[in-house]
Amino acid sequence: MAAMAAQPTETLRDLLEDNDLPGLQNWLAEHPPYEIADELGRADAVHAVLLFRLLDKDRALTVFEELDPPDQQKVLEGLREPAFRDVVERMAPDDRARLLGEAPAKFARHVLAGLSARERRYTAALLGYPEHSVGRYMTPETVALRHHMSAAEALDVVRRKGADAETVYTLPVIDDRRYFLGTVSLRDLVLSAPDRPVAEIANADVPQVHATDDVEEAARLMQDTNVLALTVTDSENRVLGLLTFDDAFEVIEAADTEDFARQSASTPWAGHYMSASVVELARARAVWLLLLIVAATLTVNVLQLFEDTLASVTALALFIPLLVGTGGNAGAQAATAAVRALAVGEVRTKDVLRVAWRECRVGLVLGSMLAVVALVIGTLLVNVTVAASVAVSLVAVCAWAATIGSTMPLLAKRVGIDPAVISAPLVTTLVDATGLIIYFLVARLVFGL
Amino acid sequence: MAAMAAQPTETLRDLLEDNDLPGLQNWLAEHPPYEIADELGRADAVHAVLLFRLLDKDRALTVFEELDPPDQQKVLEGLREPAFRDVVERMAPDDRARLLGEAPAKFARHVLAGLSARERRYTAALLGYPEHSVGRYMTPETVALRHHMSAAEALDVVRRKGADAETVYTLPVIDDRRYFLGTVSLRDLVLSAPDRPVAEIANADVPQVHATDDVEEAARLMQDTNVLALTVTDSENRVLGLLTFDDAFEVIEAADTEDFARQSASTPWAGHYMSASVVELARARAVWLLLLIVAATLTVNVLQLFEDTLASVTALALFIPLLVGTGGNAGAQAATAAVRALAVGEVRTKDVLRVAWRECRVGLVLGSMLAVVALVIGTLLVNVTVAASVAVSLVAVCAWAATIGSTMPLLAKRVGIDPAVISAPLVTTLVDATGLIIYFLVARLVFGL
Repeated sequence: MAAMAAQPTETLRDLLEDNDLPGLQNWLAEHPPYEIADELGRADAVHAVLLFRLLDKDRALTVFEELDPPDQQKVLEGLREPAFRDVVERMAPDDRARLLGEAPAKFARHVLAGLSARERRYTAALLGYPEHSVGRYMTPETVALRHHMSAAEALDVVRRKGADAETVYTLPVIDDRRYFLGTVSLRDLVLSAPDRPVAEIANADVPQVHATDDVEEAARLMQDTNVLALTVTDSENRVLGLLTFDDAFEVIEAADTEDFARQSASTPWAGHYMSASVVELARARAVWLLLLIVAATLTVNVLQLFEDTLASVTALALFIPLLVGTGGNAGAQAATAAVRALAVGEVRTKDVLRVAWRECRVGLVLGSMLAVVALVIGTLLVNVTVAASVAVSLVAVCAWAATIGSTMPLLAKRVGIDPAVISAPLVTTLVDATGLIIYFLVARLVFGL
Repeated sequence: MAAMAAQPTETLRDLLEDNDLPGLQNWLAEHPPYEIADELGRADAVHAVLLFRLLDKDRALTVFEELDPPDQQKVLEGLREPAFRDVVERMAPDDRARLLGEAPAKFARHVLAGLSARERRYTAALLGYPEHSVGRYMTPETVALRHHMSAAEALDVVRRKGADAETVYTLPVIDDRRYFLGTVSLRDLVLSAPDRPVAEIANADVPQVHATDDVEEAARLMQDTNVLALTVTDSENRVLGLLTFDDAFEVIEAADTEDFARQSASTPWAGHYMSASVVELARARAVWLLLLIVAATLTVNVLQLFEDTLASVTALALFIPLLVGTGGNAGAQAATAAVRALAVGEVRTKDVLRVAWRECRVGLVLGSMLAVVALVIGTLLVNVTVAASVAVSLVAVCAWAATIGSTMPLLAKRVGIDPAVISAPLVTTLVDATGLIIYFLVARLVFGL
């Protein structure tokens, strides 16, 4: 389990700063590829390339395959021509398509020019599919079986062609016109009697996807159905390739990282947190902060409307952050729950009315509970009249915030917007102004103004 | 791709309400197991059991395996004794251990009593490991190979014992004392020359974990290294079982769902969003909302300190929600980024000083940008003196919020607390009071009070 403990990066940083090549080679020999990949991700371009060039050829490819596309680009740009060609030629076609999809056009042309005809054809085919489609992530290198083969013949095909394929555990079965009939697992093939026909062993009740389908939905389907690989077909049901579990894993991790960023009103950025620059981090957050501060101007306008009330009872101002903050928190909880439930498929857009009604009641329950607390705190700190205004407002604000927070992501998805764009801070900012209106209207009633 | 489109639940609900058994059987026959599992998750206990009992025996088990543990319990509790025994007997030992780990003791005893001796022994062994440990999630039913076997002999072992194992794609290799030497993939076994010894085909450079290790870390290791299954050993390096990719998928989905809930200050709850009751949802959110509203009392105290300033310049109150909200948003962005980077392993607790320094600069950049906007808006809406106070405060508040928001999760992890507990709302609430102090101190200077 030593492999899993957090390794101090200091040793490596010292070695890099001292330019201690034998020490670095030792360090590389002692660490597993995925840890080396992590260090390459954290390092700047110069150090990453230095480390990469010190690796022996086979390990270098394993490390390279475990890098994210932006880090792969960082390393490739520092390699000399023969090494560059060798690495891009040996990449899997789907990994290459993903790298090129995110890279600048000049770099992409350079990569394509370095490839053999066969690999270029594969990559170009995958790049023909839209971004975020299954086609970009599938492997075209599969072993397909004919339905009339026997298990023994099929095993023979696996032995002959298996070395070139990305996986041989899921074997699509096709008929004479290359139409997809189902899949055979290598396990069933090995465990079957040798003369049993493939058509009999095949499982026809397996999920399949089209190359143009959304890759995140396909990955979630794999997660739901626990399959190792999903067959990818064209619109006429001919096999184009397989989407493998490791790609699905990556797609889901990236989608969740994106949703996390969105939930805090950041634009997701590509690449490793530790190698992103201050400017990149600031850029990922600036747009939303700007939008939200402009939206927050609404709260200034609302308070201006009630400036007389505020001037006559200054104590009302004391509770503005508490009231606005609590409404925001209640809205954030509901919004995040709805975004996540949509992402994992527990909630569908059709559920909007049911969700709204449940969340409204949840908000009422929570608001009533908080109202009691606010009444006690408010009476102790200020006076019972202000406390009563705060308490009554909290009930209304929580119910309103939970309803809005939970339904907005569903409505967004319905009109084709990524529901994660309805972030907690966005809901909070939108709920703030209405919360203040409620608070001051209630206060006016209570104080008889 | 019809399988992936959102199915209207209405048909099913109508069929259930009409108690239309032939219609329901038709519906069940036409839908894939994972969709049926989803509907069982959404349904109440009575309807879930009714649907489950209408499934034919083999499909029923597939559907059952795709349910989450709380939904499995919901279904089991409604089954009659023979069906109950049959289902629990046929579950995989790791799934059963997970079900029992979450269920009440009485239910767990009932399940264990229904098992055969062999299955009870397996399950009891897994239940002996702590919650959230690899031991709870591993499958003990593996095919291990002896190092001196030839590839042909090994394939024979797979044929003989493979039907009982959960997976045969990763085969641990052991020596005569049962010590773990490495793994052989079924692919390499099939592609090898029949007389090649297993010891030669085996890959010794594979990651492995102990049964007592944290299962989320093990799952992330699988994701990083793209392996199908991770060998689980005891402290003396003897093979206990395998952690398979589908369990890792589930662990990561659950961990991410938990982190999402925590990021909005909710306690994660077990089970399906649509089948959780209003009370369950409210309970999952109540504790944090209560804590946060008590913490928000600090803002009331801070404002009381500055009540004179507020009374003499009422216009200062107009910008309280905008200032406090923006600081909160900046803090939430930093906190969420840090929590996610820690979860996926891009940041380690040792990085705390580097992270603090970067985020402080990010906050300064963002704050300066927002200050310009606030100066313009503030001057237009109120006057330049108030606007200047707001602008200067924003720079300080954003830098402070980003620093605090990013470093608190790292410090939490260092002292052994789940970093996700440092949620965006918690950071927001803590930053609110300090933001107000900065604002009023700046305003006093600007207004010369």
